[in-house]
Amino acid sequence: MIVLGIDPGLATVGYGVISCDEKVKLKLIDYGTILTDAKEQFPIRLKQINHGIIQLIDMYRPDSIAFEELFFNKNVTTAINVAQARGAALVAASERTEQLYEYTPLQIKQAVVGYGRADKNQVQMMVKTILSLKDIPKPDDAADAVAVAICHAHSAHTAGLLNTKIK
Amino acid sequence: MIVLGIDPGLATVGYGVISCDEKVKLKLIDYGTILTDAKEQFPIRLKQINHGIIQLIDMYRPDSIAFEELFFNKNVTTAINVAQARGAALVAASERTEQLYEYTPLQIKQAVVGYGRADKNQVQMMVKTILSLKDIPKPDDAADAVAVAICHAHSAHTAGLLNTKIK
Repeated sequence: MIVLGIDPGLATVGYGVISCDEKVKLKLIDYGTILTDAKEQFPIRLKQINHGIIQLIDMYRPDSIAFEELFFNKNVTTAINVAQARGAALVAASERTEQLYEYTPLQIKQAVVGYGRADKNQVQMMVKTILSLKDIPKPDDAADAVAVAICHAHSAHTAGLLNTKIK
Repeated sequence: MIVLGIDPGLATVGYGVISCDEKVKLKLIDYGTILTDAKEQFPIRLKQINHGIIQLIDMYRPDSIAFEELFFNKNVTTAINVAQARGAALVAASERTEQLYEYTPLQIKQAVVGYGRADKNQVQMMVKTILSLKDIPKPDDAADAVAVAICHAHSAHTAGLLNTKIK
């Protein structure tokens, strides 16, 4: 099974691609970021995100795609812009598959580290360990996206999977 | 000039299509709604909105598209979902044109009625009058979208147009 993990954003969309065999042995295939320039018009940036996601899906043909749920910070304008960017990413994914899942930061930490209050550093160390990497994937958005993909691969082997499908 | 006005939403996206000649004589071409079913998966609903907008653009080939800016009510979850829906609509529009504009409810009321604190009924009556219609376009979302289109057609003949382009 190939899983594409997405950490949505406007300036930076993190992505991580992993494979998962029947013994839940995970392997990192690719990771990185889709970057958009703040000098570009907002709709152009949304289009870049949308096309970037389509390209990733067409390149790696994931069996499922897992999105991190939006974190609501106190800046409403930022939250609204990130939400629009997430919409542009989701609609791209929806063009290719209905196997779309989402996880809260709490669920991701729980799945990757084993408890929901783990800090960013602990999550990144576990990503490195689980995937037998020499280094932590950089930047943070890419590492976060890999963590979402791991979370989904683990969840796919538990009863909770149906509950995480984006409804 | 053909203007497509869009009132973004998740369950209901209003649209209005008007023509505007060199004397700023406006004529209603079409109006209506793109509806999505709350029972459908969220990404499917975003795709329906995205495809609906693409269809409208391909049918009417507007010279410019005007979006109503999001109104932030107190329900953050609703606002975030509507924002994602707006992202799905914007990315569709961005596939076809860079002539994308946005107006606040205040700007729309100012342009259509003449003052920014007009109520919904006053806006709808002015939409009917400006376009010489027998009836007010229904439902409200469609009338709102027609009002955005009128607002843009009027703004296009003033110096403020560049400021309303979505940046």
